[in-house]
Amino acid sequence: MFDLISLKNSIANVKGFYCDAVNVGMRTNSANSGVGDIDGDVAFIRSEAECEVCGVFTTNRFQAAPIVHFKRYPKEFKTNFILINAKNANAMTGERGVEDINEILSHIPKVLNPLNPIMSSTGVIGYPLPKEKIISAFSKFDYNAKNSYKTARAIMTTDSFEKQIAFRVELENGESFNIAAIAKGAGMINPSLATMLCFIVTDALVPRADMEELLKDAVEGSFNAISVDGDTSTNDTVLLLSNGMSGSYDKEAFAFALNRVAFELSQMIVRDGEGANKVVAFKVSGAKNGDEAKKVAKNLSNSLLVKTALFGEDPNWGRIASTIGASEVECDAKKLVIKYDDLVVYSKEYPILDQEREQRAFEIMKKDSFTISCDLGIAEGSYTAYGCDLSYDYVKINADYRT
Amino acid sequence: MFDLISLKNSIANVKGFYCDAVNVGMRTNSANSGVGDIDGDVAFIRSEAECEVCGVFTTNRFQAAPIVHFKRYPKEFKTNFILINAKNANAMTGERGVEDINEILSHIPKVLNPLNPIMSSTGVIGYPLPKEKIISAFSKFDYNAKNSYKTARAIMTTDSFEKQIAFRVELENGESFNIAAIAKGAGMINPSLATMLCFIVTDALVPRADMEELLKDAVEGSFNAISVDGDTSTNDTVLLLSNGMSGSYDKEAFAFALNRVAFELSQMIVRDGEGANKVVAFKVSGAKNGDEAKKVAKNLSNSLLVKTALFGEDPNWGRIASTIGASEVECDAKKLVIKYDDLVVYSKEYPILDQEREQRAFEIMKKDSFTISCDLGIAEGSYTAYGCDLSYDYVKINADYRT
Repeated sequence: MFDLISLKNSIANVKGFYCDAVNVGMRTNSANSGVGDIDGDVAFIRSEAECEVCGVFTTNRFQAAPIVHFKRYPKEFKTNFILINAKNANAMTGERGVEDINEILSHIPKVLNPLNPIMSSTGVIGYPLPKEKIISAFSKFDYNAKNSYKTARAIMTTDSFEKQIAFRVELENGESFNIAAIAKGAGMINPSLATMLCFIVTDALVPRADMEELLKDAVEGSFNAISVDGDTSTNDTVLLLSNGMSGSYDKEAFAFALNRVAFELSQMIVRDGEGANKVVAFKVSGAKNGDEAKKVAKNLSNSLLVKTALFGEDPNWGRIASTIGASEVECDAKKLVIKYDDLVVYSKEYPILDQEREQRAFEIMKKDSFTISCDLGIAEGSYTAYGCDLSYDYVKINADYRT
Repeated sequence: MFDLISLKNSIANVKGFYCDAVNVGMRTNSANSGVGDIDGDVAFIRSEAECEVCGVFTTNRFQAAPIVHFKRYPKEFKTNFILINAKNANAMTGERGVEDINEILSHIPKVLNPLNPIMSSTGVIGYPLPKEKIISAFSKFDYNAKNSYKTARAIMTTDSFEKQIAFRVELENGESFNIAAIAKGAGMINPSLATMLCFIVTDALVPRADMEELLKDAVEGSFNAISVDGDTSTNDTVLLLSNGMSGSYDKEAFAFALNRVAFELSQMIVRDGEGANKVVAFKVSGAKNGDEAKKVAKNLSNSLLVKTALFGEDPNWGRIASTIGASEVECDAKKLVIKYDDLVVYSKEYPILDQEREQRAFEIMKKDSFTISCDLGIAEGSYTAYGCDLSYDYVKINADYRT
């Protein structure tokens, strides 16, 4: 058994990790979509001890230069430094983009003994990095700072709030370790190529052999459940760094904490996006197999008409059914059961939404978060995806269509 | 050779066809999204001579009752009557939905000698048709009317204007025939399950053997090029009726006219949607094969971030490239060429959009319609899809992201 204790200030809690952010003139006030006090545009995360590192990256065929750069390191390399910038993705910049990264990273102060430093970028595609500006950050950073908040905000683009999380994991034997992460990404523009970045750091002594498996599992149940496979930006990145400085590890406990970190951050991303009011879990069961369940769940979470119906709090299940039917999976109207939370809104027995159940459905839809379950009644495949409503004026024509 | 002469009032021009629409109380003013004088909610199209008929229908697994009803007629059946209603899709209504159609259609006045009558519906999913209301239309219709405009408007749902078209085709031998159509559907909500209905009528003497082939071809290059395959509503329907009353036919001329009718209507659907300002052709070439070209073209035409960039008149090609890269097709940044009309905005030779070309790109993007060409440089696959911008306030956060 183990305990999970929630902590504030994310990265600041993890032994041996430091972070800070500065403004080098890439981000100006007008660029911040009115979300207030974002200041930084270049940030670092470093560890005083060398780290095992592993990453999960975009499946986009045009992977940005930072990803190409990462992948050129030898397999299972170690690192102690990540540099992150907003406002420029360093994507579609060719070999020059990779050369620019090498040049920039060569300016990390030698006193920090940089080991295989990593760069990560988000912003506009197709322009070379402003190298001099970014290099100027190295003389401005406080390398012994633990400015989690500032760092989490510096990597924001269309985000309306910073995303950070941390846990201390206390093991039965009295030992403990810490895990923390920051992320950026906004649910509103899911699934259309908004870059998602996530940096997870831990002082747990994670064996190299476990890292990839655990990170992939965590990403599958979190970030992959909020976006459409294959519809990815050029820069999507999730990195896990472990410096082992707690000296402790328990696979089960670590996996639990890692999954929780990734899941909570993914929910923050879904909830973000100016005007998004609701987070909905689309729980598909009874599909022919897992792939078909996933296809349906993702189509539901990404359908504009479903999203606008959520905004309009329209309890009609027609758009749900139509989206299932359009998913090219095995399904049958006579076997289908659709529920909002525990309320059956469609089944063979209840083909018409009567006024009493419509009223109950409406009450459920008014909540900040609820579950739409679709049992296809074919076999055992299941998957849960997460989505938000679309609550902008533009959707009125759809939201009002039925009433 | 042949001449194509554009005509007003669509169906009214085609020999032996009549149409009218009435209001039976299903459509109320508040339901019309403020587009003004829509009145009718039930309409008919009939022919005094029996017609060959063929249809292309949704691939949605939950095909609505009208489609099930149509498909139960013997292969190659003939008809002389179509009844159409708005406000209720008669979808997910099971066998009862089909029985309701049979009952409703049994009330067509006997004096019209109804032959295998067809029904078509659009509107909300999951409620039984208001049979009595719809049946009441039969005593209100003027069966000898040629009220094309009223009929085209009666089938509208979220449409902001009626969609109708007609041509007279004059053959070299002095003979002629007419073809006309009405359609409904709004591009704004493409690809998310807005129902598309299209009724094409002709007095050309089309041989049964040609009908299916020609209709399929016409749909592929028009309606299928504006929506995502498989992401279809429960009710999508394109019907072609030919009563042969002109006594004339020429395959090449008819195919040309039919393609033109379908293409023009599909462009009207793209252009529709409150606030849509631009129609953009996404012309993909040089793909590994036709399927990969189609995948890229459709992804581009449906990407929210591309659509918002069009609205924002942002000449940056980054979202185009990112969408191509996310399409899981063979591509290579070194071979890719992206053009706005004739202007190269990205290629290996022009990897960065300089100020002069950015200004020229901006001028092109200000136009009502233009072409975005993407040559993948791999092989010979090509496909063109059509899309519109998304010009609502909600998109501001995306449209402004870069500036």
